Amino acid sequence: MSAKITADTVREWGQRFSNWGRWGADDELGAVNFITRARILAATALPRRGEVISCGLNFDQKGPQLGPGPRHNPIHTMIADGGDALAGAQDFIPGGFRYADDTITMPLQCGTQWDALAHVFYDGKMYNDRDISLVTSRGARKNSIDVLKNGIVGRGVLLDIPRFRGELWLADGTAIGPEELDACAEAEGVSIESGDIVLVRTGMMTRCLAEQSWEGYCGGPAPGLSVHCASWLYEREIAAACSDTWGLEVLPNETEDCFQPLHMISLRNTGVLFGEIFQMDALADACAEDKRYSFLFTAPPLPITGAVGSPINPLAIR
Amino acid sequence: MSAKITADTVREWGQRFSNWGRWGADDELGAVNFITRARILAATALPRRGEVISCGLNFDQKGPQLGPGPRHNPIHTMIADGGDALAGAQDFIPGGFRYADDTITMPLQCGTQWDALAHVFYDGKMYNDRDISLVTSRGARKNSIDVLKNGIVGRGVLLDIPRFRGELWLADGTAIGPEELDACAEAEGVSIESGDIVLVRTGMMTRCLAEQSWEGYCGGPAPGLSVHCASWLYEREIAAACSDTWGLEVLPNETEDCFQPLHMISLRNTGVLFGEIFQMDALADACAEDKRYSFLFTAPPLPITGAVGSPINPLAIR
Amino acid sequence: MSAKITADTVREWGQRFSNWGRWGADDELGAVNFITRARILAATALPRRGEVISCGLNFDQKGPQLGPGPRHNPIHTMIADGGDALAGAQDFIPGGFRYADDTITMPLQCGTQWDALAHVFYDGKMYNDRDISLVTSRGARKNSIDVLKNGIVGRGVLLDIPRFRGELWLADGTAIGPEELDACAEAEGVSIESGDIVLVRTGMMTRCLAEQSWEGYCGGPAPGLSVHCASWLYEREIAAACSDTWGLEVLPNETEDCFQPLHMISLRNTGVLFGEIFQMDALADACAEDKRYSFLFTAPPLPITGAVGSPINPLAIR
Amino acid sequence: MSAKITADTVREWGQRFSNWGRWGADDELGAVNFITRARILAATALPRRGEVISCGLNFDQKGPQLGPGPRHNPIHTMIADGGDALAGAQDFIPGGFRYADDTITMPLQCGTQWDALAHVFYDGKMYNDRDISLVTSRGARKNSIDVLKNGIVGRGVLLDIPRFRGELWLADGTAIGPEELDACAEAEGVSIESGDIVLVRTGMMTRCLAEQSWEGYCGGPAPGLSVHCASWLYEREIAAACSDTWGLEVLPNETEDCFQPLHMISLRNTGVLFGEIFQMDALADACAEDKRYSFLFTAPPLPITGAVGSPINPLAIR
Repeated sequence: MSAKITADTVREWGQRFSNWGRWGADDELGAVNFITRARILAATALPRRGEVISCGLNFDQKGPQLGPGPRHNPIHTMIADGGDALAGAQDFIPGGFRYADDTITMPLQCGTQWDALAHVFYDGKMYNDRDISLVTSRGARKNSIDVLKNGIVGRGVLLDIPRFRGELWLADGTAIGPEELDACAEAEGVSIESGDIVLVRTGMMTRCLAEQSWEGYCGGPAPGLSVHCASWLYEREIAAACSDTWGLEVLPNETEDCFQPLHMISLRNTGVLFGEIFQMDALADACAEDKRYSFLFTAPPLPITGAVGSPINPLAIR
Repeated sequence: MSAKITADTVREWGQRFSNWGRWGADDELGAVNFITRARILAATALPRRGEVISCGLNFDQKGPQLGPGPRHNPIHTMIADGGDALAGAQDFIPGGFRYADDTITMPLQCGTQWDALAHVFYDGKMYNDRDISLVTSRGARKNSIDVLKNGIVGRGVLLDIPRFRGELWLADGTAIGPEELDACAEAEGVSIESGDIVLVRTGMMTRCLAEQSWEGYCGGPAPGLSVHCASWLYEREIAAACSDTWGLEVLPNETEDCFQPLHMISLRNTGVLFGEIFQMDALADACAEDKRYSFLFTAPPLPITGAVGSPINPLAIR
Repeated sequence: MSAKITADTVREWGQRFSNWGRWGADDELGAVNFITRARILAATALPRRGEVISCGLNFDQKGPQLGPGPRHNPIHTMIADGGDALAGAQDFIPGGFRYADDTITMPLQCGTQWDALAHVFYDGKMYNDRDISLVTSRGARKNSIDVLKNGIVGRGVLLDIPRFRGELWLADGTAIGPEELDACAEAEGVSIESGDIVLVRTGMMTRCLAEQSWEGYCGGPAPGLSVHCASWLYEREIAAACSDTWGLEVLPNETEDCFQPLHMISLRNTGVLFGEIFQMDALADACAEDKRYSFLFTAPPLPITGAVGSPINPLAIR
Repeated sequence: MSAKITADTVREWGQRFSNWGRWGADDELGAVNFITRARILAATALPRRGEVISCGLNFDQKGPQLGPGPRHNPIHTMIADGGDALAGAQDFIPGGFRYADDTITMPLQCGTQWDALAHVFYDGKMYNDRDISLVTSRGARKNSIDVLKNGIVGRGVLLDIPRFRGELWLADGTAIGPEELDACAEAEGVSIESGDIVLVRTGMMTRCLAEQSWEGYCGGPAPGLSVHCASWLYEREIAAACSDTWGLEVLPNETEDCFQPLHMISLRNTGVLFGEIFQMDALADACAEDKRYSFLFTAPPLPITGAVGSPINPLAIR
């Protein structure tokens, strides 16, 4: 980890850890292709308890987006409610039927979310050699999130780094390298397999919730994956990497030359699905309790045509 | 089915098929309580192929909401895109990192969706004896969709009525009674069990897609469940009932005295979760192929605090 | 000003200063009725310079709404832009025609704004004896802002209180009473007339902009009109009262028994149009320069059907 | 009008009728610069009756946007209402103060509107030689609508073409040439002056409202200005040109080589402000009654930072 990471390093690693063309020139799924039918079947055999644990943070005005800027917390408004019924506004409906209805305005990546492979690019290209001019105000014509609508289902593995370290949470700026991922997995008694959906807990969200402050959560210093995990994600054939932080990667980044270099390499070149703002505390407690860190995992994206991300409610089935 | 259904009938059946208090005065989950851990474990044993099939209709401007009115198709807008990168608007980001980002404005029930138990009420009350004054412009303080965030996972059963009948789709106004549900299940070689998530295909969406017209889909005449299914849903301990139509129930309703009487009884009193606007065609083809009509089913709602519904991407894992 | 203001006082003053029925049972315009054609003609004679000065604060993410909560700063998103043109997304349009287009999501009272007469109520009634059940999720069926679409045009008068006092801005919590309004007008050489649109400058916005912080601006302590101005607004036949603050009235209110008692009396009973979050600094400078504090004023609301407020760009024509 | 209009013609006329640089390289106001202080003062002398007539179409779900697509009718939702008060949701507010509040999601050009000079471009440039890369997802950095916040106030002139022709409305596809504009003005007894805001009534909206159908209104065949008006707009030094149609120009355009050639020339090169979807019927009736077709006109845009258009409520003061 000694050599300086430069913009050239990122491009070199991007080449080295590239899956472009691996599943054909038409592929839009990326590393999700590693989740084969056999892997899915194997994952369905994991549950022992029949318990379902959400890794979703509630979507509301208490969310992490502090603004100003284009990403804001969800705005939920009612278009019909019990007050209308009380006011007689629904009296035209026969038989006393009354109802509530509602609507939302939300950035697709304001909370617990998948990044689509159209979310990040450099040098004019996104995953699988596609031009960024395919992503305009009308949405992404390739690599959008809706191509993943028959997913995501597979084997999830929680790597609970603070518990492994014996800490409540990792300090901001802490980089988690591939060796630590392996060591944590080993300590948990789980082995990483091709097609795995890896959930890396840093404890940052635990801290924010404990301190009742999201200050700095979005875009500020954070613990997270080191850029050196790029090779690990590629070689282990990880389908998706998720964390309890805003951006999965350590911040400040390990280089000043590139912003979010792991996104640049692993999302754009390797085609790994990134999951962010996961709330993993309940899952972490359950895993610690029965010492089982792998589970059936499902987190279907909303198939929003042309979208570059999707809010999700990820479920661990144990 | 001979006696006239009146507003009084609805209330009488509401009483008869009520689950209020069954899981305590604090319960907000309703019939989803029937999905026990044992049921979930049993469901995970169902998949044979490792295939995942979405029952979600894409969320976009081609959706079924023709307006005008408060429910409209999703409005998806980009807040950053490849064009920005081309225009140099992201040149301040070091190392060539470029990105796209987006936002959505959508009624929560404009497409494939769960109704929360706070969605429908009558006589001033919703599920489990709660006052409708709990549902105001600030959202639902009880029975909202986010209480179901650790779900929905269970055994799904497809009842493919048009295939059972040997038709492409059911005509608008066709009521599907409990006998037909049973006969269809029997023909499919599947038995209905407590806690099942029942997907009733009418073929209406198949027809709309074939005819490339959603005219009448939302709120117009439709095939669907008869109000006489209220007892069936109650007695069979169905957790959730879903269809490929706008409102699950047959329209015009079997009585002019009440609008959506099955919602009134089964959602409000029985506490059944209703799923609507499901796209079941691919699932139906797969089930017909291997003659297996039960599967592991998962459709996590977005935990939008206080919401009375949620868009979903339901997955059948087979 | 010695007697304690109670909830009863507010109701008593509401009765005393009521214009309910004054312009008929069907009236929805309230004190705007005082702006007669003669007044409008007289106002058009006021300009001397031909200069137009906006009292609008720009609508953007730098606005005063700090959240969380239902009122947020405007969210402006592009639905077509120059980047699309660069990306070739508009190449289907013949002859090189290219374009940009945009959309907004904004609370109607998030910035410079009119309150409709349907905005505030008490004891089940709003202006002109109308039931609050007329204001539901579908909007206001009476007293909505669109009834004022043929306005607002009239004589504006700036009462520049900090300049009158020789201060940069008034301290938070400073109540401006009717005597001070009169004294300020007299010092400015202007007399208040029936149908006037009175712009009361407190300097609070000046301070917020100088300090580059909106902290406390929305709903926090503020200088503003005393509840004792209720009689003044009624007797002087003021059509509209505007300020550079969030809520026109002094905060904390002069009583703990009622929130925004001047709104309760003067908006609901007197029918005065309230204008808020006006940016009056440029206007104040111009008025001070030529010592002319009255002008032709125009601030047309957007005729949003059923709305209880409207963003505006108020113009002083001098 | 005999020679074929080609893409080259448009560029040639763009050059010929260009105001680029006329008011300096920094200018963003365009032809609005013709509205001098003297013109504004002269306009304030026009009113005789003291009547104010809105040319705004109400903003609601009955508007002309039939969708699908990015432009939709305004979505108005309540975030507090009388029903909340009835439900007790506001009981925490002391003294019985109750309120309603609301929000809107609307494309800025979905109804009565100004086009900003950043709205239309070709060959990589917009008004005053500015690059289109200045218009990205973050909005327009130049030529946006908010630069016009101290306006629009001036002399308005109604050219009521159908009344001039003795027709109820012009047929779709009818081109209005400069000669007809002059003849109409002459018949109305009004002369066109530098800095005028010209309102050209075609009657198309009258027809749509009479037929209760907006079919084809947005983007379909329409009566409107001929591309030959480009010279007229330039030579007469028109500040703004407005109509009761979706796009001011005749549709189908007089050439298949370019879409909206008058926008290309007059908006981009001449810098004329375009106003669209004006509801001119009440104004037309009033002008016909007293035979006065010029008036004080005011239509302040909402100063939405970086926006390329703004909804407006244009007022004629007569």
